[in-house]
Amino acid sequence: MSHNTFGHLFRITTFGESHGPAIGCVVDGCPPGILLTPDDIQGFLDKRKPGQNRFTTQRREADEVKILSGVFEDERSGGPRTTGAPIMLMIENTDQRSKDYSEIRESYRPGHADFTYDAKYGIRDYRGGGRSSARETASRVAGGAVARKVIPNVTIRGAMVQMGPHKIEKKNWDWSEVDRNPFFCPDAKAAAEWEIYLDGIRKSGSSCGAVIEVTASGVPAGWGAPIYAKLDSELAAAMMTINAVKGVEIGDGFASAALTGETNADEIRMRHGKPEFTSNHAGGILGGISSGQDVVVRFAVKPTSSILTARKTVTAKGEDADIITKGRHDPCVGIRAVPVGEAMMAIVLADQFLRHRGQVG
Amino acid sequence: MSHNTFGHLFRITTFGESHGPAIGCVVDGCPPGILLTPDDIQGFLDKRKPGQNRFTTQRREADEVKILSGVFEDERSGGPRTTGAPIMLMIENTDQRSKDYSEIRESYRPGHADFTYDAKYGIRDYRGGGRSSARETASRVAGGAVARKVIPNVTIRGAMVQMGPHKIEKKNWDWSEVDRNPFFCPDAKAAAEWEIYLDGIRKSGSSCGAVIEVTASGVPAGWGAPIYAKLDSELAAAMMTINAVKGVEIGDGFASAALTGETNADEIRMRHGKPEFTSNHAGGILGGISSGQDVVVRFAVKPTSSILTARKTVTAKGEDADIITKGRHDPCVGIRAVPVGEAMMAIVLADQFLRHRGQVG
Amino acid sequence: MSHNTFGHLFRITTFGESHGPAIGCVVDGCPPGILLTPDDIQGFLDKRKPGQNRFTTQRREADEVKILSGVFEDERSGGPRTTGAPIMLMIENTDQRSKDYSEIRESYRPGHADFTYDAKYGIRDYRGGGRSSARETASRVAGGAVARKVIPNVTIRGAMVQMGPHKIEKKNWDWSEVDRNPFFCPDAKAAAEWEIYLDGIRKSGSSCGAVIEVTASGVPAGWGAPIYAKLDSELAAAMMTINAVKGVEIGDGFASAALTGETNADEIRMRHGKPEFTSNHAGGILGGISSGQDVVVRFAVKPTSSILTARKTVTAKGEDADIITKGRHDPCVGIRAVPVGEAMMAIVLADQFLRHRGQVG
Amino acid sequence: MSHNTFGHLFRITTFGESHGPAIGCVVDGCPPGILLTPDDIQGFLDKRKPGQNRFTTQRREADEVKILSGVFEDERSGGPRTTGAPIMLMIENTDQRSKDYSEIRESYRPGHADFTYDAKYGIRDYRGGGRSSARETASRVAGGAVARKVIPNVTIRGAMVQMGPHKIEKKNWDWSEVDRNPFFCPDAKAAAEWEIYLDGIRKSGSSCGAVIEVTASGVPAGWGAPIYAKLDSELAAAMMTINAVKGVEIGDGFASAALTGETNADEIRMRHGKPEFTSNHAGGILGGISSGQDVVVRFAVKPTSSILTARKTVTAKGEDADIITKGRHDPCVGIRAVPVGEAMMAIVLADQFLRHRGQVG
Repeated sequence: MSHNTFGHLFRITTFGESHGPAIGCVVDGCPPGILLTPDDIQGFLDKRKPGQNRFTTQRREADEVKILSGVFEDERSGGPRTTGAPIMLMIENTDQRSKDYSEIRESYRPGHADFTYDAKYGIRDYRGGGRSSARETASRVAGGAVARKVIPNVTIRGAMVQMGPHKIEKKNWDWSEVDRNPFFCPDAKAAAEWEIYLDGIRKSGSSCGAVIEVTASGVPAGWGAPIYAKLDSELAAAMMTINAVKGVEIGDGFASAALTGETNADEIRMRHGKPEFTSNHAGGILGGISSGQDVVVRFAVKPTSSILTARKTVTAKGEDADIITKGRHDPCVGIRAVPVGEAMMAIVLADQFLRHRGQVG
Repeated sequence: MSHNTFGHLFRITTFGESHGPAIGCVVDGCPPGILLTPDDIQGFLDKRKPGQNRFTTQRREADEVKILSGVFEDERSGGPRTTGAPIMLMIENTDQRSKDYSEIRESYRPGHADFTYDAKYGIRDYRGGGRSSARETASRVAGGAVARKVIPNVTIRGAMVQMGPHKIEKKNWDWSEVDRNPFFCPDAKAAAEWEIYLDGIRKSGSSCGAVIEVTASGVPAGWGAPIYAKLDSELAAAMMTINAVKGVEIGDGFASAALTGETNADEIRMRHGKPEFTSNHAGGILGGISSGQDVVVRFAVKPTSSILTARKTVTAKGEDADIITKGRHDPCVGIRAVPVGEAMMAIVLADQFLRHRGQVG
Repeated sequence: MSHNTFGHLFRITTFGESHGPAIGCVVDGCPPGILLTPDDIQGFLDKRKPGQNRFTTQRREADEVKILSGVFEDERSGGPRTTGAPIMLMIENTDQRSKDYSEIRESYRPGHADFTYDAKYGIRDYRGGGRSSARETASRVAGGAVARKVIPNVTIRGAMVQMGPHKIEKKNWDWSEVDRNPFFCPDAKAAAEWEIYLDGIRKSGSSCGAVIEVTASGVPAGWGAPIYAKLDSELAAAMMTINAVKGVEIGDGFASAALTGETNADEIRMRHGKPEFTSNHAGGILGGISSGQDVVVRFAVKPTSSILTARKTVTAKGEDADIITKGRHDPCVGIRAVPVGEAMMAIVLADQFLRHRGQVG
Repeated sequence: MSHNTFGHLFRITTFGESHGPAIGCVVDGCPPGILLTPDDIQGFLDKRKPGQNRFTTQRREADEVKILSGVFEDERSGGPRTTGAPIMLMIENTDQRSKDYSEIRESYRPGHADFTYDAKYGIRDYRGGGRSSARETASRVAGGAVARKVIPNVTIRGAMVQMGPHKIEKKNWDWSEVDRNPFFCPDAKAAAEWEIYLDGIRKSGSSCGAVIEVTASGVPAGWGAPIYAKLDSELAAAMMTINAVKGVEIGDGFASAALTGETNADEIRMRHGKPEFTSNHAGGILGGISSGQDVVVRFAVKPTSSILTARKTVTAKGEDADIITKGRHDPCVGIRAVPVGEAMMAIVLADQFLRHRGQVG
C-alpha cells in the first residue's frame, strides 16, 4: 500500500489538505457498467459534513462532489455509467477560513501529528492540520459510495455504541434510531443522555472519545483470503487509518479473550437447507474469510486532541511552551467517524469481492 | 498485499501446510551486509515451538531452520552475510502424525476455518488445518528474526497480559519474569495463578483466550506514514493476520474512548535538550508516525476452538452433526502467539524503516 | 501495478478522458522539501502540447497545470516546497470540440483501442478516444517533471532518431539541434528531409511511425535491482505503456543479437581513479542495475491509426463497414512521444532511486 | 513489483543462487481445484535444462522439481489439486562444481552483473554468478508451467527466429520443426545452417546473440488493461527481466515505425459471425488489451558475456586487469531462453486473466 492509496483491485488514492483548494479521491479498478451519479455519493458526504449541529465543528463546507472522469453517458447508456477507467471525485474546499497560524506553526499541539510530521518530513502544512486533518476522510466517504455500488447486495450500516464512558444497551438497539439523533446512536435512551453529556463537554471546552460499530449484512461466505489478505486484517488496517482511531475489534473482539472455547466457537446447524450459525461471536469471519454471517467491526476513537485547556508542549525550536487549541473543533470527533467507518468497510469488501472473483471465478 | 506476502520494501512470503513436507518463508528486500546465521533465528523459533510444556500442543517439532539462499560467506566476509537477494528460510515438518482425518474431512469444526475455506475454494487440506493451521506462524517468526537484524537499535518484547478473564497488574510488571514462566507473563504473582487456572482448563478439555502486549523501544520519531501506510494501521493489520486474533489496540486503545481530551493527549516537555512526552496514552504513534516513545500494541486471542466438548455443526454434505475436536491442541493458543506478535512487530518496523529511508533519506 | 498507477515508492496515478472536464496526476511518495512551482512543470507540458505547428494535431489546449495539493509555502520556506503529501496536478481540458461522434460510436477504428475496450468493458467513452487517447500522456509529463526534481543530478534528454523509414546518422548527432526543429531531431540534415517527407504524409492524409531515443546521464552505478525490478525491465514497461509504442530496446537492443561476445561486452578500465567503460553497448545497465554509464532506451511508435483513407472495419452490431477517421490528428504521433518518453524515464529513475536508498541506505 | 516477485493476482516469488543448495519459486494466487503434478512441470524444465547437447552449458542438473505445498490429494480429489494456497516449487542444485573462484572474486567480468552488484550491495555471491545467474530462470519455468494450467485454452509456443546475424525465413516457418533441432528453430533449413555457424562460435570460444519469438493463441479479446497495466507493457517487462535480454517488441515492433497508417492498422471483417482481423501487425494487442488474435512477442538476447578471449576489466580494488571467463557456458544463451520466454508469457497471461475476471466478471 502506498501512503495515499488503499486497496488492491478496487482502490482509492486520495489527495488534498485541510486548507488547500480541494481534496479528492481517484477510484481505480471499478467494474464497468455501473450507474453512478453525484447523487449516489452526495448523501454519504452529507452525513459526514461538518457544521450540521452544535456537536460538530462549525466549519461550513458544502462538500459538493464532482465526478471528473471515469463515467460516461450517451443517449443509449440509460444514465451515466462507469467505464472501467479511473473515477476522479473532487471536493473543493470552500471554508478555509483565513486565520493566524503563528501559534501552531511554532508549537506542537499534544495529541496531534504536528510533532511527528515535523520529525519525519522537516516541513509541515500547519494550516488546519494540513494533510493530517480529518478533512481527508471526506475523500474516503466519496470513494466508499462508489464501493457500495460494486456490492449492491451488501448493506453496510454504522452506529456509535459508546460516547466517552457511556455505552448503549445492546437490548435497546434499533437501527431506525440511528438517523434520529445527531450521534448515529441506535439507542434512543442513550442518545438523550449523550446529548446532555456532550453539551457539558462542549461548553467546558473539553472533548471525549467514542466507539463505533459497523456491520455489513449480505456478505456471502467466501470473501477474504488467507494469510496476509485476511478480511479481518484488512478491516483492521482500514479502520486504523481513520484519524484518532486507537483500537479495532472483530465480533466479540477483546471480550473473546475472557471466553472459553465452548462459548466462543459459534455452532452451526442446517436451516432451510443452508448452514446457519447459532451465534456470531466471530463477527462473520473465520480464518480470514467471511462466513455468510454479518461482518461486525468495532473501533475506538480517542478524544479530540484540540481542547480549550492549556497543555504543556514544546516549540519547534526546542523550548517549553503552553498551548490552547482554539478554532473550530468537534467535541466528539467519533460522531463523524461513523460514515467514514462505513466507507472503509465498503471499500474493503468491494476490493475483496473483486479479488475473490479473480482467483476463484 | 497478496495472500501470502506481507510487507512492501521488506517483505515475507510464506508457504506450507501443517502436514505437508515443509513450511517456510522467503524474505525479500533485506539490506545487504548483515551477519545472519541460523542461530540468529533459532532462538525465536524455540520460543514458539510446540511441546515445550504441558500448556502447549504436544506436537513434537524440532523447528530447525535452514537458510537456503540470500546469505554468502567467504574468508573475507567475517561470517555469513545477507547479499540483498531473497533469503529462503525452510523448516521441515517432522511430526505430521498419521491419523484418521475422516471426521474433520466431513464436518466443519466450529470456530475453525473449515467451513469458510470450503465455501471459498471448494477444496480443503483438512490434515491438521492445512494452510489455516497456526503452524504457518513459525515461518513468520523466522522472518521476524531477520527483520530484527535490520533494525538493531530497536528492542522488541512481548508479554501475555491477560489469560482468560485474569489480567496482570500493571504495577507488578517485570520484564525479567517473562522468561521465568511458561506464559510469557511479566507478573510473577499472576503467572502462579494462571498456572492453576490453565491446568483446570486443560484437564477439562476446555480452552481460554488471552491478551498479548508487544512493545518496541528505540524506534526513532518519524517512522510510519500518512495516510494509508500509517504505522498503527500496519501493526493492526499485522497482528490481525495472526491466527485467532480478534482485536488490536495501540496505546490506551479502547480505553481511550472513555478519556477526555485533557487526559488523553500526551503532553511534551524538553528534557536533556530533547522533546519528551510526560505520558504515553498514544502508544508511541501520532498521525500514523512514531513519536520516539515506546510503540505499544495489544491484541486479543480467542480461545482455542478445538475442545473436547461435543459441539453442534454441519457436514460438507449439509447434514447436522456433532463434533469433538480430538488431537493435540493448545489450551491457550495465546501463549505461543507472543513470539509471533513480536515477529510481526519486527517485520512492520523493518519495512517502515526502509520505506522511510527511501522517501526521506 | 494497478491500471492507472505507475511506480512503487515514487508513483503516479493518472485520471481523465480526452473529452472530459480535466485530466491529471496524483504524485505520491515524493520526498519532502523540494521546491516545486507550476513553472517547473509547465515547460515540459509545453513541449508535448498539441497545435504548436502543422505537424501535430490542431487541437488547441493551454495545458496549464495547477498544483492542488502536496506543496506548502510560508514566509520561511523560501518558496513552495513539497511536504511528502500527495501532489495533485490538474490540467483542465479546454478544447473538447463538440462534434458528431455517431460514426466512431458505431464502428471500430482499425488500429485503435475501440474494439478491445468494447470487448473488455462493454461500454466505451468514444469521444476522442476517451481514456485511450494520447491526451492521458500530458498527465505523465506533469508527473515526470516532479520526478526530475527528485533526481536533480540526472539529465534526461530525448530525441527522435527515425521518422517513417528515415533514420538519422549517428555521426550528425547534436543535442542542441533538438530544440531547433519541430521533430526533436538531433540531426539538422535529417530534420530538413523529414520536414519534406512529413508534409507529404500530412497532405495525403496518411501517417508514419517513428523511433525515439531517451538518454539519462548522471545516473550513479547501483540503481535498479534484480530480478523482477530490473531497471531495464521497468523502463521497458514504462515506454510500452505510451500510446502506440510497439517496441523497446536498451543500448544496442535488437542489434546486439547479431554481435559476438567479444564485441558486445563493454570493457572496463580505470580512469582518474574510477572504473570507466570503453563502450556502452549495454545502454548503461548490467544485470538490471545501472553501471554509471548513460542509460539509453529506444522505443518504436507505430503510425497514427487515424488516417483519411477509408479502411475496412466492423460495427458494434456486427456488420461490415468502411471508416475514415476524420478530425484533428498527428501525422506522426511519435513527435509528441519524445517528452512523454523523457517523463517516463524520469519517473522510473526517481522510483528506483528511492527504492535503492530504502534498501541499501 | 518487489525485487523477486512478478505478477499481481497470480504471482511468482523466486529465490536461490547458482551455487546454493536449491532454487525455487512460490506461486501465489493460483485458482483452486486445478490438477497439478510434478509431471506437469517437469517437461518444461527439461526443455530448459542445461547439458542436453553440445550447444548448452555442460553443467549437469537434474532440475527435478518438488511440490512442497499448495496441492492436496485424497481419495476423492481425483488426483493432486491446487487448494488456493501458495505452491512451493523447489529444485535442488546438484552440480555446483567446486572450483576456484579467486579470479572472478577479484575482477569484474565485462558484460556480467559483477560490477553493478558490487556497486549496489557491496557484497556479491560470485560463485557462478550467484543470484544473477541464468539458473534463476528454472524457477520461472516451473512457475510458468503452473500458469499454463490456469489458462488451459491458451497455447503458448516459442521459437528462435534469429541466431547471431542469421534470421529464419518466415515462409519456412513450421512449428513442428521446433522440437527437431537443438535451437527451437521453426525453419529446418536455417537450423542446419545455424548448427554449422554455432559450432564455429563454440570452438573459437566466442558467443552469439539471438532473437526469440513467443506466440500465444487462444487468448480471448479483453485481457489486459489500460493504462499502466497494459498487456504489452507487462509482456515487455516480463521478457526484459530474462537474463541478457536487451529488446522487446510486440507484433511488427520496430518495423512498424517504417510503415504508414494504411499498412499498419489491421482491418476488420465479419467472418462466421465474428469480427476477424485481416492481418496482425499489432501482435494481438490494441490499447493494451488483447484483440483475440495471436499475441506475438519477440525479444533480443545479447551474446553470452562469458568468452574465452581475454577482455579488459578492473578489479574490485581498482586496478586494471585482463580476464578470461573459463568454465561451462552456453555459446548462445538465447537457446535456453525460449522456454523461459514461454513461461513469462504464461505468467503474464494467467495474471491478466485473473485480474480481468476480478474487475469485469
